[in-house]
Amino acid sequence: MTFDATVSARRPLDFRSDTLTRPDEHMRSVMAKAEVGDNVIDVDPTIRRLEERAADVLGMPAALWTPSGTMANLIALSTHLRRGDRFLAPRGAHVLVNELGSAAWLAGGMPDPLEHDAGPGRPTPQTLRAAVGGSGPYYTLRTTLLSLENTHNASGGAVIPPEEHDQLVATAHEAGLRVHLDGARIWNAAVALGVPPATLTAGVDSVSACFSKGLGAPVGSVVAGSEEFVEQARRMRQMLGGGVRQGGILAAACLLALDRIDDLAADHAKAARLAAGLRERGWDVTEPRTNIVLAGVADVAATLETLRGLGILTLPMAGKVRFVLHRDVTEDDVTEALRRIESGPFDKMGQ
Amino acid sequence: MTFDATVSARRPLDFRSDTLTRPDEHMRSVMAKAEVGDNVIDVDPTIRRLEERAADVLGMPAALWTPSGTMANLIALSTHLRRGDRFLAPRGAHVLVNELGSAAWLAGGMPDPLEHDAGPGRPTPQTLRAAVGGSGPYYTLRTTLLSLENTHNASGGAVIPPEEHDQLVATAHEAGLRVHLDGARIWNAAVALGVPPATLTAGVDSVSACFSKGLGAPVGSVVAGSEEFVEQARRMRQMLGGGVRQGGILAAACLLALDRIDDLAADHAKAARLAAGLRERGWDVTEPRTNIVLAGVADVAATLETLRGLGILTLPMAGKVRFVLHRDVTEDDVTEALRRIESGPFDKMGQ
Amino acid sequence: MTFDATVSARRPLDFRSDTLTRPDEHMRSVMAKAEVGDNVIDVDPTIRRLEERAADVLGMPAALWTPSGTMANLIALSTHLRRGDRFLAPRGAHVLVNELGSAAWLAGGMPDPLEHDAGPGRPTPQTLRAAVGGSGPYYTLRTTLLSLENTHNASGGAVIPPEEHDQLVATAHEAGLRVHLDGARIWNAAVALGVPPATLTAGVDSVSACFSKGLGAPVGSVVAGSEEFVEQARRMRQMLGGGVRQGGILAAACLLALDRIDDLAADHAKAARLAAGLRERGWDVTEPRTNIVLAGVADVAATLETLRGLGILTLPMAGKVRFVLHRDVTEDDVTEALRRIESGPFDKMGQ
Amino acid sequence: MTFDATVSARRPLDFRSDTLTRPDEHMRSVMAKAEVGDNVIDVDPTIRRLEERAADVLGMPAALWTPSGTMANLIALSTHLRRGDRFLAPRGAHVLVNELGSAAWLAGGMPDPLEHDAGPGRPTPQTLRAAVGGSGPYYTLRTTLLSLENTHNASGGAVIPPEEHDQLVATAHEAGLRVHLDGARIWNAAVALGVPPATLTAGVDSVSACFSKGLGAPVGSVVAGSEEFVEQARRMRQMLGGGVRQGGILAAACLLALDRIDDLAADHAKAARLAAGLRERGWDVTEPRTNIVLAGVADVAATLETLRGLGILTLPMAGKVRFVLHRDVTEDDVTEALRRIESGPFDKMGQ
Repeated sequence: MTFDATVSARRPLDFRSDTLTRPDEHMRSVMAKAEVGDNVIDVDPTIRRLEERAADVLGMPAALWTPSGTMANLIALSTHLRRGDRFLAPRGAHVLVNELGSAAWLAGGMPDPLEHDAGPGRPTPQTLRAAVGGSGPYYTLRTTLLSLENTHNASGGAVIPPEEHDQLVATAHEAGLRVHLDGARIWNAAVALGVPPATLTAGVDSVSACFSKGLGAPVGSVVAGSEEFVEQARRMRQMLGGGVRQGGILAAACLLALDRIDDLAADHAKAARLAAGLRERGWDVTEPRTNIVLAGVADVAATLETLRGLGILTLPMAGKVRFVLHRDVTEDDVTEALRRIESGPFDKMGQ
Repeated sequence: MTFDATVSARRPLDFRSDTLTRPDEHMRSVMAKAEVGDNVIDVDPTIRRLEERAADVLGMPAALWTPSGTMANLIALSTHLRRGDRFLAPRGAHVLVNELGSAAWLAGGMPDPLEHDAGPGRPTPQTLRAAVGGSGPYYTLRTTLLSLENTHNASGGAVIPPEEHDQLVATAHEAGLRVHLDGARIWNAAVALGVPPATLTAGVDSVSACFSKGLGAPVGSVVAGSEEFVEQARRMRQMLGGGVRQGGILAAACLLALDRIDDLAADHAKAARLAAGLRERGWDVTEPRTNIVLAGVADVAATLETLRGLGILTLPMAGKVRFVLHRDVTEDDVTEALRRIESGPFDKMGQ
Repeated sequence: MTFDATVSARRPLDFRSDTLTRPDEHMRSVMAKAEVGDNVIDVDPTIRRLEERAADVLGMPAALWTPSGTMANLIALSTHLRRGDRFLAPRGAHVLVNELGSAAWLAGGMPDPLEHDAGPGRPTPQTLRAAVGGSGPYYTLRTTLLSLENTHNASGGAVIPPEEHDQLVATAHEAGLRVHLDGARIWNAAVALGVPPATLTAGVDSVSACFSKGLGAPVGSVVAGSEEFVEQARRMRQMLGGGVRQGGILAAACLLALDRIDDLAADHAKAARLAAGLRERGWDVTEPRTNIVLAGVADVAATLETLRGLGILTLPMAGKVRFVLHRDVTEDDVTEALRRIESGPFDKMGQ
Repeated sequence: MTFDATVSARRPLDFRSDTLTRPDEHMRSVMAKAEVGDNVIDVDPTIRRLEERAADVLGMPAALWTPSGTMANLIALSTHLRRGDRFLAPRGAHVLVNELGSAAWLAGGMPDPLEHDAGPGRPTPQTLRAAVGGSGPYYTLRTTLLSLENTHNASGGAVIPPEEHDQLVATAHEAGLRVHLDGARIWNAAVALGVPPATLTAGVDSVSACFSKGLGAPVGSVVAGSEEFVEQARRMRQMLGGGVRQGGILAAACLLALDRIDDLAADHAKAARLAAGLRERGWDVTEPRTNIVLAGVADVAATLETLRGLGILTLPMAGKVRFVLHRDVTEDDVTEALRRIESGPFDKMGQ
């Protein structure tokens, strides 16, 4: 089931995910010194500091730490949805595809995917409005939530710009929907757009954000919303078993991670260089907006295997090969990856 | 919430649904004489006869009576799906759109709609195969069920022909999926295709069928499958509160309804005539295969209201106006409806 | 799984349940003439009449027809409970023991049984108050519902008198709980106490009542509550697959059944005579308040089998042998049952 | 909602829970040096080491790390139970009372409490056998799981000795039930009984154990069982959002905690001394077997408040006042607590 990183005699270059990033020495030392408390029966002071700062950075009234982004999204959906409520999300959204159906069986929502007619990961307000439809009698499905994702993973880290975000949120609210934003990589979106993260949460009813991807913390996400939302979310977190005791050790890393948002620009630059290099070598890749490069190939499994033979680790995503750039992949690694691909058994376009 | 059938001074012509059909005198007298028993702690003899005959007609090992088609589908999905399992159904399927999300929150399935690329209501095996995708590691969604619908309501009573059905079932089984068939109107499909209903259930793991639509019984459906499936389904029916006592009174009507399958040809003829008449008057309607006519109009709500003013009752369906023909709408009613529409305030195309 | 009623050469005497009652000729003829409509997209006029009359008899603002008492209770619990809410019910209550756990897995409630310290089926207000406990922080269970049962099946048709009912409801409401009453046999309680059924629903937030037990209708229950409650209940009924079309045929029988409440006195008299006769023959039975006689025996399964050999059908209930008296068991049947038991292989106390 | 630990001018003595224990410097330094990996798409090497060692210590084939004991129990119950399955647990069990009903709404189980007729926290095999009852027809509840708890929190850290454990497990298995053991404090039970932890898991189908209570790790539990069980549990953990990335930092603390099991004897000694001291001062306390002292008082809330005024923090538990001894409460703290209580406004018996 898992990948053996020593598959190649050569040093493995691991582009599988930014979740692979490991805490560095500084982060470890900060964690080791964290002030802690019992975050179930009291409040862990470092978790509290993280929640306050995350709420502030995200421009939301309150935030709640969770052990994973999946739990953060699940809590948000569970809190917003009543049994059987229909919710809309861009096709390929993490909540639709990568959370083992918990949005349906556990949060109780009936999902419906939105097409990306404004660009990768981006439905238009028209598409949203049409999907909501009108209200019907008691025996009809009731649509109550829009779940956006910025950046949109399955679309190669695509970014929803602020004006589009604002229009989608306004359209959703006009139609009586709440809006959740899966902001697992909202930091990347903010850096790519050159705006504060809070700009990208304008108007939303809840947002999740992750510290354990490009920002390099080992464990942890937050879900943010109104005070009342967070009160309900805290109870749901406990129900799901996400209430931990001295979590301040983890929160300390998340706090430090928040200081490193700007570092993501380097990942984006590496992604752009990798994409350019692949394109030069005949691969079918689109211009990355953030830290993800998707390559369209004829046979995904075969290409993954060939790359693996070259010591280049990647994962399949939405019918393509995904390369994710992150702080533990260096500029030299990108150079080396392109060199290996050039010398590899590829014809063109990753075949 | 409900429609006032006396909206017009004129005699209302009710094309809203074939669920409106009422038991006639003969059916009522058969019901009044039905032999009954307690179908929870014993077996009601008339329900037993219905279940045996329905299983036979549907070509399945066993069948179970349910109070509604919605419960029949819900039982099937609940029995087939484990928590979070992904299931595929043609876009607009009843289980996706018309059952209040119970497939998700109650049966626990994560739905994904299939496009109709082989024709209305009909995905191709290629589309199915691509949607299933490959198997992944433990943290990936698992696709385990295909839920077909024949006829497909939201596509205007569209029919899946036997050879396409067989290919879809074979493709699903090759990919490790079970197959459920929502056969609420399978009787119409069989009549339209000139085949026995059992031809249209070939290979499926379960099928639901309804007696309370075109066949005119007041209440009742069945869900059919293997003996083991029905044993589990019986328990699920009890859990949902669908276990009734002297239901033989209702089952007697369903048994009689099974004698009336061939009568549906008359409904199809009426649908064809209505569609032709509407088309002659400039409406955008496609050729009905069974008893449903969908008309594409610019403003569905406005057209419904105008028709209502003419004493013609219809319902919206998949962004169109739906006319359903059934045994309680006569040939003369069709003639009268076309006359009223001709003399009505319509310009063309139902506007 | 089911009992063969022809087990004995002798005419079987069936005391298993009042759910066995069959519609008589008059009821069948009333059903055959019932006015009907589509009760999903319109309102079936006979169902509407039943719902209005049942609401009136039960002293509630509104009522909703359901195909079974199990569904009626399930709808009530689903409507009252949020995920994980604790609810209290007398030990052995139907919602705890006889509904396949749907109160937990489907309605989402965490049940806790109350002891019967005021008498069979009857907790005291003190016990209720102690069970509720105080309120705690966010990570503690929240108790939100009391579910009573009058008559209490597992306690042998025991009755909660009005003054005790009122005190329990008042205690529950003071503690912030809602109150549901499982009134499957509320008609029996009312007859036994000589009060109108509405007296026994005073203050409750919802009540279910069944027409398919002693009152002799083939199928049907209602759940009643406020207008807002019934609006939510209607949606939940549809979700569960309990929305039927021309259900007026069944509702007509339920309406007639409401005229027959006073007939239950005869069942109670038969129960008293059976209990007295059993006691005379050395059996350990308590004085029945309504139509159920529970006999304590050393080996329930063996006694059931012996009785069965005598052509006397019973069921196990709460570790005892249950005899239920109903309109399809005559005075002569009681006499004959006692005669067979006297001549049977019993020593004493049903052994 | 939370307690202000600075409530008293005097140094607060915190007996609320052993979950309050904080990682010491050595534990922090071990954590800071932990080898880590992405435990979702790969396996974190330190988590793997912990899981292997925990499985070994617990005498189970495999184990899975979870962020909390609540999640560990929830995963076990979800894996063992099908919809509506009845499960039995000693009255007051953590899974019944302290997990926000997730055993019911999320794992889908219908709980039923067992009386403690063999001693605190200990049902007899007879009680268990009687509670299971016999098997019934399809419409009857099905009992499939026994969930034990050793030590039993709500009974004051009561211990189930090995021979009783073995008999309960054998009785459960004979009746066709699986057995889960909530071993949050199994380490305390093993120390109190002077046996290896694995002795106390003999025969169980799953066991949870916690490192974040008396053993002093900041975060983390495991759930252990067969290889197949853990495979399913891993998927459920991901569904619930308990899959974390570089969790090795936390697991390193849990590994160290496993070296400290014997230290718990000191907590037990402190508990014995506190109990003796309270008893000498007229309080109604039973002899603690492990690290928990329960005091019966007339008014729990009032006593908590009075203790709080003395700078002694406790929590209510099962209608009593709970004192928990742990590594962060010293011998001197016990002495000081008794001194303050002696000089406090108490009459006798904690009043």
